[in-house]
Amino acid sequence: MTNPETRQDRFDRGMKVLAEVDGEGGQRVIDALADVSPELGHQVVAWGFGEVYARPGLAARDRQLVTLGMLTALGGCEPQLKVHVNASLNVGLSPEEIVEALLHSAVYCGFPKALNATFAAKEVFAERGLTVNQD
Amino acid sequence: MTNPETRQDRFDRGMKVLAEVDGEGGQRVIDALADVSPELGHQVVAWGFGEVYARPGLAARDRQLVTLGMLTALGGCEPQLKVHVNASLNVGLSPEEIVEALLHSAVYCGFPKALNATFAAKEVFAERGLTVNQD
Amino acid sequence: MTNPETRQDRFDRGMKVLAEVDGEGGQRVIDALADVSPELGHQVVAWGFGEVYARPGLAARDRQLVTLGMLTALGGCEPQLKVHVNASLNVGLSPEEIVEALLHSAVYCGFPKALNATFAAKEVFAERGLTVNQD
Amino acid sequence: MTNPETRQDRFDRGMKVLAEVDGEGGQRVIDALADVSPELGHQVVAWGFGEVYARPGLAARDRQLVTLGMLTALGGCEPQLKVHVNASLNVGLSPEEIVEALLHSAVYCGFPKALNATFAAKEVFAERGLTVNQD
Amino acid sequence: MTNPETRQDRFDRGMKVLAEVDGEGGQRVIDALADVSPELGHQVVAWGFGEVYARPGLAARDRQLVTLGMLTALGGCEPQLKVHVNASLNVGLSPEEIVEALLHSAVYCGFPKALNATFAAKEVFAERGLTVNQD
Amino acid sequence: MTNPETRQDRFDRGMKVLAEVDGEGGQRVIDALADVSPELGHQVVAWGFGEVYARPGLAARDRQLVTLGMLTALGGCEPQLKVHVNASLNVGLSPEEIVEALLHSAVYCGFPKALNATFAAKEVFAERGLTVNQD
Repeated sequence: MTNPETRQDRFDRGMKVLAEVDGEGGQRVIDALADVSPELGHQVVAWGFGEVYARPGLAARDRQLVTLGMLTALGGCEPQLKVHVNASLNVGLSPEEIVEALLHSAVYCGFPKALNATFAAKEVFAERGLTVNQD
Repeated sequence: MTNPETRQDRFDRGMKVLAEVDGEGGQRVIDALADVSPELGHQVVAWGFGEVYARPGLAARDRQLVTLGMLTALGGCEPQLKVHVNASLNVGLSPEEIVEALLHSAVYCGFPKALNATFAAKEVFAERGLTVNQD
Repeated sequence: MTNPETRQDRFDRGMKVLAEVDGEGGQRVIDALADVSPELGHQVVAWGFGEVYARPGLAARDRQLVTLGMLTALGGCEPQLKVHVNASLNVGLSPEEIVEALLHSAVYCGFPKALNATFAAKEVFAERGLTVNQD
Repeated sequence: MTNPETRQDRFDRGMKVLAEVDGEGGQRVIDALADVSPELGHQVVAWGFGEVYARPGLAARDRQLVTLGMLTALGGCEPQLKVHVNASLNVGLSPEEIVEALLHSAVYCGFPKALNATFAAKEVFAERGLTVNQD
Repeated sequence: MTNPETRQDRFDRGMKVLAEVDGEGGQRVIDALADVSPELGHQVVAWGFGEVYARPGLAARDRQLVTLGMLTALGGCEPQLKVHVNASLNVGLSPEEIVEALLHSAVYCGFPKALNATFAAKEVFAERGLTVNQD
Repeated sequence: MTNPETRQDRFDRGMKVLAEVDGEGGQRVIDALADVSPELGHQVVAWGFGEVYARPGLAARDRQLVTLGMLTALGGCEPQLKVHVNASLNVGLSPEEIVEALLHSAVYCGFPKALNATFAAKEVFAERGLTVNQD
């Protein structure tokens, strides 16, 4: 990051990380912004992914655990939560770990937000044909 | 958990987990509740730790990553955040990983909450005589 | 609560309270969790209802007033708000008192959250064929 | 409210309700606003108390239960929570009912906000020399 | 505001301001409240618009900038955000300024809330046949 | 922004904007981060100010109106609110306009958050020796 980079270089750097983490869900968000706020799409990619996600200090899997916690706590972010349940699966969290993280969230955020998040995860699991192992 | 347990059994089970995770910080919260809402103290221990934290489905370290995300996003929970920065250190997260998780939170919660959380972490690091390795 | 209880005992105790308070709406939430997070469903019942709601220190009607206030203030919890508008009616609050409580919420939460909550209540009243007495 | 009223009439009407409910705590807030935003002080009294609190559709005690729920859920409103723990005591809620309402809030808002609210209540009880009956 | 006014006078005063700012969107909200909480509708108009919006100390355009910021930050207020994106256009903000204000919100609220708000604005622009000039 | 820039270039670009808008208050935040999360300090400057604030599409004064709205609505961000009340004064908003914006916030966020924000503004006015003109 110490070499000079153009705006496009930074975007390209972010897109590589975005593709690994969020996959199609992230790309769809960027596409949907194209005719209203392409700059917001640019900054999600170039800054969010290119500057923050790209940093080596925290594993991709760990970033998603923090992100699941934040999106559950914020409330009203179900679309983003679905993108990040997908991302969590992409970077190695199991459905069981995701469900457990959302159960854990009840302790800190209360049941309503834990329920909203769990139902968002349920939709993602159904879309991907995943079942949650119960025992 | 299928054997019959008394209320005290459940509390004792929670206290073991609390002691491992939160250490003194958690105990101080329970003590401070003794003359106003001992039942809230009981439930933090018996339910939060005894029923949720005690479950094997998510590593202690992973639970703290989710918790750091939630407490940062909720806002106004600096006392709890300090307890859980301590807990994060107790279960194996490094100061550098904690700081990186809070930098990551800026993407999802914005700078003000990321700043509040980072300054709470700074206080904990100072109390424990820890420096954050910069490179 | 001082006698030994199994996990199932605690669940059964909670189900009795849930049935009185939330009725069908609560049961539907538990059912919807069965294939994704049955443990979350268990804890809503066994802890939320069996440990907290079951306590004698606050009347069922009073618990719903506090709950309406919380769900309105949290925001983004319209599904839970609908369950608890139903619960409020079940435990003796009138439609007029519910509407007044949500008007009161405008003072503390502002108009947008008061409006969201009032429209959630409107849906419940319509489902139950209730009219709000105006005078 | 159908007779013509001046701005001062509406303020006076609100002050009567404020005095009954919030007592000195409310007055101190209005006083503190005098040199920065007297209009905000006017509206708290004339609108909040004169137009909303003054309505007969919900008992004063019930309004405080809703308010305790909202202030706990909003977070970061400890000064207002202290005013309304006082108000709750003024209109007939017992310390035990207030503590139970805040325990109840843990189910919907999570432990951190329930703890912050309970510690705010503890300060008020101490200021008024009240002890919470435990049994 | 120093002359005596009836409740109806205050409502009429608010309706004039509401009509200028919110137009049809505001009226639809009042209509939808008529059979559930006409008093909430009255207070939105008589207090929100008649007492606060009507004050000369802040330009209509400036009030909408503050309002866009608040509704984005609160989260879960997309219906109100759509009303106020319309209001912002009505009082002279351009689509480009609105989009820029919502990009700005990412710095303080994080990307998820900025995205939710931007997609709400996109819907309003589409309804009004507006395109956002990109360069 | 299309020419290649180093990380330092981007930081320097942001610092120019930060100095104009936030003045000393912003610099103090960056300094306080130096030993705990210099990267967060870097990103506040290089991204927040260098990439977002630096854009020409919204006047500095307008950005502060949006920011005051967001910080009031988020709650628990009084330190940041004080920085931005200062910033608002720096870019041309009068104390009277700031106070009016915070009165306006009561309509959307409720009185508690409006009060917290107004008292934060009162502290800033006192530090700068400003009085709010009342009439």
